[in-house]
Amino acid sequence: MHAVALKRGASAPEVIDKPRPDPDSGEVLVRTLRVGIDGTDYEVIAGHHGGFPADDDHLVLGHEAVGVVVDPNDTAFKEGDVVVPTVRRPLPDGPTEYFERGEPDMAPPEDVVERGITGGHGFMSDYFTSPAEFLLPIPDDLAEWGFLVEPISIAEKAVEHAYASRSAFDWQPESALVLGNGSLGLLTLAMLGQSFERTYCLGRRDRPDPTIDIIEELGATYVDSRETPVSEIPDVYEPMDFIFEATGYPKHAFESIEALAPNGVAALLGVPDSWPFEIDGGKLHRELVMHNKALVGSVNSGYRHFEAATETLSSLPDWLLDDLVTDIYDTSNLADAFADDETTIKAAVKFYDHEER
Amino acid sequence: MHAVALKRGASAPEVIDKPRPDPDSGEVLVRTLRVGIDGTDYEVIAGHHGGFPADDDHLVLGHEAVGVVVDPNDTAFKEGDVVVPTVRRPLPDGPTEYFERGEPDMAPPEDVVERGITGGHGFMSDYFTSPAEFLLPIPDDLAEWGFLVEPISIAEKAVEHAYASRSAFDWQPESALVLGNGSLGLLTLAMLGQSFERTYCLGRRDRPDPTIDIIEELGATYVDSRETPVSEIPDVYEPMDFIFEATGYPKHAFESIEALAPNGVAALLGVPDSWPFEIDGGKLHRELVMHNKALVGSVNSGYRHFEAATETLSSLPDWLLDDLVTDIYDTSNLADAFADDETTIKAAVKFYDHEER
Repeated sequence: MHAVALKRGASAPEVIDKPRPDPDSGEVLVRTLRVGIDGTDYEVIAGHHGGFPADDDHLVLGHEAVGVVVDPNDTAFKEGDVVVPTVRRPLPDGPTEYFERGEPDMAPPEDVVERGITGGHGFMSDYFTSPAEFLLPIPDDLAEWGFLVEPISIAEKAVEHAYASRSAFDWQPESALVLGNGSLGLLTLAMLGQSFERTYCLGRRDRPDPTIDIIEELGATYVDSRETPVSEIPDVYEPMDFIFEATGYPKHAFESIEALAPNGVAALLGVPDSWPFEIDGGKLHRELVMHNKALVGSVNSGYRHFEAATETLSSLPDWLLDDLVTDIYDTSNLADAFADDETTIKAAVKFYDHEER
Repeated sequence: MHAVALKRGASAPEVIDKPRPDPDSGEVLVRTLRVGIDGTDYEVIAGHHGGFPADDDHLVLGHEAVGVVVDPNDTAFKEGDVVVPTVRRPLPDGPTEYFERGEPDMAPPEDVVERGITGGHGFMSDYFTSPAEFLLPIPDDLAEWGFLVEPISIAEKAVEHAYASRSAFDWQPESALVLGNGSLGLLTLAMLGQSFERTYCLGRRDRPDPTIDIIEELGATYVDSRETPVSEIPDVYEPMDFIFEATGYPKHAFESIEALAPNGVAALLGVPDSWPFEIDGGKLHRELVMHNKALVGSVNSGYRHFEAATETLSSLPDWLLDDLVTDIYDTSNLADAFADDETTIKAAVKFYDHEER
């Protein structure tokens, strides 16, 4: 079968041939429909993040997948079920306590395999296998878009943890700001628009721009970070009850403290490299305390976040998905698929169509 | 009656004469037993924090009080009830929504009066009045120590919010670190010792020192910040599931991120002034995200935290209270009462004895 893999030492992915995997006991064989590409994939390709499986000269990429069960292999699945795989797996001979609790997303990342990212092959291949417990069934009519369940699940977890941090009092949030107008930012903006009265999204793009069009079509306000730094947002717009950071730009993480309304919370999702800079640490510390603010970091997501993400995906309007998913490539267009430019919002690699047999 | 007040322009408190207050409808008249002194009082005296009542030339100090009801004034209280007042009151003609919700501690501080701190007279006087709803009855046998309910309630709220921030998953904390060996730090250390397997307390004192004696008597480990910076605590001791910051030293707030174990949370309570310094913002941001860490600021406390604090106070051993409360002064020793030195851990001003009539 075909697979999209990064070879050790290579700086770009390529299509390789691999034997179709045989499901072990408890595993399901899945035919892959589509696999999304995101910033983590670029980090893996650049060698900034992740790692190869120990005994292999390559890493099959892809962690945002949707597929169809072709061999249920005596599990509760049926042939034809549309499924989305979760990403984390136990390390061989590694600790399993977080998996036993159903919370692999809370495991220290060094204690797990992340398929397509670190230590285990991903889903960018004609077929993949997975233990049944790591597959989520989704409705057939989401088969085309199911590769968005994983990124939405990342937002679901971050929002869940942010709300939890405000659960000791009667929090009544109205305003939400998403930092970043990439695909994760825009999906989250759409999700937050369902529960917040006023939403904002920060980017650094000139009009006309397709992401600004989406922001405004969602009824949100576009904030240009070149005109309005994050710390000035309360003065120019309003203080934000909730901030969702999806830029990986660490100054934003700390400036968020000043952009929050009293009792507000910022969820941080970016994974930046080391970068020393100056902050007014006294002022930020005082602000966190005097206004009961919180910062909550969040990584990965668990099974219940995939379930919530499936609900969210079902609720998103068709126009949004059409506008957001700008590029669907097959494996013959690999260079294009991984070319990141300003016309691409979300790209995916297609292996099979849903109705294909 | 006597009152301990700071006059406008003065740099030290003095004893003044004031008329004994008459309780309005719904208010109770309380004879004051003891009022604790804490860091906030020093900040108020230095003019760094708080403010005078608008129409007065002085501020009666004191926000950590315990007293006895002398005139229940047709409320549910009875003469002789031992009571502790909460601190926050609505501003005249100010918003009351947070009070109506029973969460004045979540109000923006600029929207409230804090008795003895900002905009309203405190409790350091022979008698004070308070609406009944802002008085907590406590057991008679806590009359001597009841002035510790308010500071313990501050810790109760911070711990509650920190736990809430970890409530979206199965948090199993074992190690806790208190930053600061002042009276609030030591009270919190005693409280955390009841639920954490291993506790630590950071200070910068040489042995022999009475706070180090208390730390070790509590079964906790003393960490000398001059030998072990906060960021190195995981290597020298262990990563901390919970950190309670009670130093007001903002570098500690940010270094806490590195001292936390995966999925840990730091509660921040200090109120520092502006202080710019450099951090590795990228590293700290990444660390918050990759290990699901949180920072939670917390100020003031609500009625339920006073209730929890009363339970906690009841559970503390006598030796601890005896060793912690180093100084009880009457109003003739005011200069001594407010002299902060290394032999003082916790001082209070005494107005009446419990059994006095």
